[in-house]
Order: sequence, then C-alpha cells, then structure tokens
Amino acid sequence: MIKRPKILVTNDDGISAQGIRFLIDVIRDLGDVIVVAPDSPQSGMGHAITVQSPLRIKMIVEEDGYREYSCNGTPVDCVKLGEQVVLKGKPDLLVSGINHGSNAAINVVYSGTMAAVIEGCIDGIPSIGFSMDDFSQHLNFEPARALITHIASQVLQNGLKEGVCLNVNFPVTEQIKGIKVTHQADAYWSEEFDSRVDPRGRNYHWLIGKFVNRDNGYENDINAMKEGYASVVPIKIDLTAYDQIEDLKYLEQNTEVQ
Amino acid sequence: MIKRPKILVTNDDGISAQGIRFLIDVIRDLGDVIVVAPDSPQSGMGHAITVQSPLRIKMIVEEDGYREYSCNGTPVDCVKLGEQVVLKGKPDLLVSGINHGSNAAINVVYSGTMAAVIEGCIDGIPSIGFSMDDFSQHLNFEPARALITHIASQVLQNGLKEGVCLNVNFPVTEQIKGIKVTHQADAYWSEEFDSRVDPRGRNYHWLIGKFVNRDNGYENDINAMKEGYASVVPIKIDLTAYDQIEDLKYLEQNTEVQ
Repeated sequence: MIKRPKILVTNDDGISAQGIRFLIDVIRDLGDVIVVAPDSPQSGMGHAITVQSPLRIKMIVEEDGYREYSCNGTPVDCVKLGEQVVLKGKPDLLVSGINHGSNAAINVVYSGTMAAVIEGCIDGIPSIGFSMDDFSQHLNFEPARALITHIASQVLQNGLKEGVCLNVNFPVTEQIKGIKVTHQADAYWSEEFDSRVDPRGRNYHWLIGKFVNRDNGYENDINAMKEGYASVVPIKIDLTAYDQIEDLKYLEQNTEVQ
Repeated sequence: MIKRPKILVTNDDGISAQGIRFLIDVIRDLGDVIVVAPDSPQSGMGHAITVQSPLRIKMIVEEDGYREYSCNGTPVDCVKLGEQVVLKGKPDLLVSGINHGSNAAINVVYSGTMAAVIEGCIDGIPSIGFSMDDFSQHLNFEPARALITHIASQVLQNGLKEGVCLNVNFPVTEQIKGIKVTHQADAYWSEEFDSRVDPRGRNYHWLIGKFVNRDNGYENDINAMKEGYASVVPIKIDLTAYDQIEDLKYLEQNTEVQ
C-alpha cells in the first residue's frame, strides 16, 4: 500500500468559509487531510501570533484519512498547533485558503492566509497559499479546481526550494487561461479613513482604502490575473535586501569603538 | 529659519513602554516629533490591521514641536492613522521601537515593531526599526543613544532606496562596539506548547518556544550582535524570490487553455 501524503489545510476566513470548504474538497483527492483553521474570520491578521492568552482546539470531524479541528487563534497559531499538537510532526504539504480576496502584490504582507504559508515555510514544509480576486462570500471556485490539483501535485512531487513558498492568485472568470509564474507587483493601498462622531461626541475612524498599482512592468501578478491567468509568485522568508548591504556600509563608518 | 524634519514615532510594546520613551527622548533632538503608539502592548501582532472595529486616537501631549497620541489599534494602524488623520501627509522619517526583545533573524516576520516600519516603507517613508536583545521591562538603553542618533541622522540626510527599510538590533552591553550592516540570519523558533487542563477538564495550550539559529554563515545579524555590534539589516517589501521564477516555470506547462 502506498503511503498517502499528509496535507495540513488552514485559512484566515475561518473554518466555515466557502473557500476552505472548496479547498478541502479538492485536496482530499491528493492525500490524508488535517484541517486546523480559525473558528472565526481572521482577515488582516498578518503574521500575528497569540502569546497573551491560551489557545484551544476543538475536534469537529474524525474519519479515515480526514480530521478537522477549529482553533481560537490566528492562522499562524493554527499552523503551529497543527504541527505540534495535532500531527506531532511535519505534514508533507501545507495549503492555505482559498482566500476570499486577492493576496497579489503588497497584500501578501497583510494576509493571514499567506502568513500561515510563510509559517509553514519557516518550518521547512512545502507551502502554498490560494486566493481568489473577489471578496464575495459566495464565489464560484470551480474554475480553479484543476489548477489547484495541478500545483499541489507538482509541489508534493518536486518540493520547493528551502525558504521559498508559493502565493497563488486566481482571477474571477468562468475559464482560467492557465498559469503564469510572476513577481509581486509594486502596488499599495492608498488608505483613507472614514472618520465619524459617536453618540457621545467622540471621534472614531474606520479603515477603508483604494488599491493602487504603480508597477509599470508586465510580468507581475496583477497583470497575469488581468489577462485571465492564475498567478504563481515564489515568496521568500529572507527579507534581506542583499543589493543594499554594500550601499549601506557607510553607516558603519566612525561608529567603531576604539 | 531651517524647517525641522517631521518624525513619526511608534512601537508595539505600547506608549508607556520604556523603549519608546527612550527613543522619543533621543529623536526629539533631530526634528519635530509626532508619536502615535498603541495604548496597550501589541507584541506578536505581525502586520495585523484593524478592519472589524473602529479606531480611536487620544491626544496625550501637545507642545511646540511635539505631539503624542495613543491609539486602540495595532502598530500598522498607528502608522496609517499617524499619516492620514494626525499629520495629513507623510513624515520625513518613521522610527519604531525601541522594542524590548530582538527582532533579528526570522523575528522580523512576527514583529509589530517591524510591521510598522514595513508599513512606512510601503508608503514611501524612510523607516527604521530599533530593537534591543532583552525582554526586560527595565533595560539600560543608554548605550544605544549615540548610534540611534547616527543612523537616524544619516537616513534623514541620505534617505533609503525605495522599497527598503532598516531593521536595527542592539546587543545588551555597556558599550556597543559599532555598527555592522548584515543580513537576516537563517533561524527559526522551535515552538512547543505548554499544554494544560483547565478546571472544567478542557485542554488549553500556551505558546512557548526556543530560538534556533541554523545559519552557518558569519555576516548575519545574530553574529554581529553576539560580537557586541549593533546590526543593521536592509529589509525589502518585495518578497518575490526572483531566482526561483525560472525554476518554477515548469508549473505553467500544459495548463494553457486552447
């Protein structure tokens, strides 16, 4: 009997989100699946971890080749708990998502979905985040099915370079044209606040924002999606700007204690 | 009269932490200072943003060349509010810290202090995070004073490359030997959970962890600090692993819709 790979599944929209239900459905064909996902939505949590309060996990489903747990922590907490408390070891693959909303461009920095993926990568697990460019609660994820299977199978087979994980983003379309391996577009959120006055006369502010793409290049994730392709961006956990080390050596001058 | 630079100060340990009080004291010599910091500790918040609840800011001090506000959000929220609600424009410099605890190596990913810095960098502000390698509440930050002034002055004068910010970490020592411009050490947290049973018989888990440096190289931030130097690592906001794009092109094969 061939040993089936162990696949850890998580997300940041919470365990009942449509995106993770679809991802579980697709990924169960590829191996034994262990789901550890937040019990409530955790969007925008970035790489937050829970250190001030205790974490709890709750078993939801246990059947042959499939276990499902919810957790009161962040997506990163879910990965840590999944490895150490549930699996007591590393899975062969970690998948996170499908996020309701794009994690292309600078969104990777704010994303709980991708934070879970980065956490898996730090721990040496081949890890992939999947997102779809639409915030609707009821999305048609079907067009992404074959590509999820393709990418996850390839990564299970070939692995990923140490310190590198994948950020996969799907456009919303009836038929995705294929895959483009691209780079993170240079874009940002032009934030604004919706500032209001509460019934007690005090000011408060809701964060809103407009996404601005300032990337003039072509081979980036935003463009790939615009053209109807799924974008795959390899993401590093070493954030060092190596090309800047020499340029910044001047900061060392005259600081040496004699 | 020479126009003094505007400097935005924040942190993740909260506005009353000793580290930010010291940083404010040092940085006030260099310009007009605007502090917007969390009203309570936000360690481990990563790049979290607050989208589910409204944000409030409270003025604490207003005097000539100095204003101080607390905020109920995360460090990243503080930067956004500082720019858009308080300053209504970009400061000339953003400094974050001094964090109580190292943000060297992989800690940059979990750090609220560095998330604020990365947020400033996304917005095009020259941004620097300062951390000291000790979690004590009562630390002697004095040995870092001259180096903070040196680095902040140089960055005010020369700026930083677009998309690059600085992660500065100080060792705990009576006399810091100087500055080394280094790279992020390849290290990770070997997490463990302290698992307990509550009075109602339910399991809960406290996150604990041991820091493991697996970097065999020399010119990294951990080594610089071990030798008594302050480490300066240039950090990128483009997380793309460019050297992997070609290697991963094989994923595109046979996915193109005819």
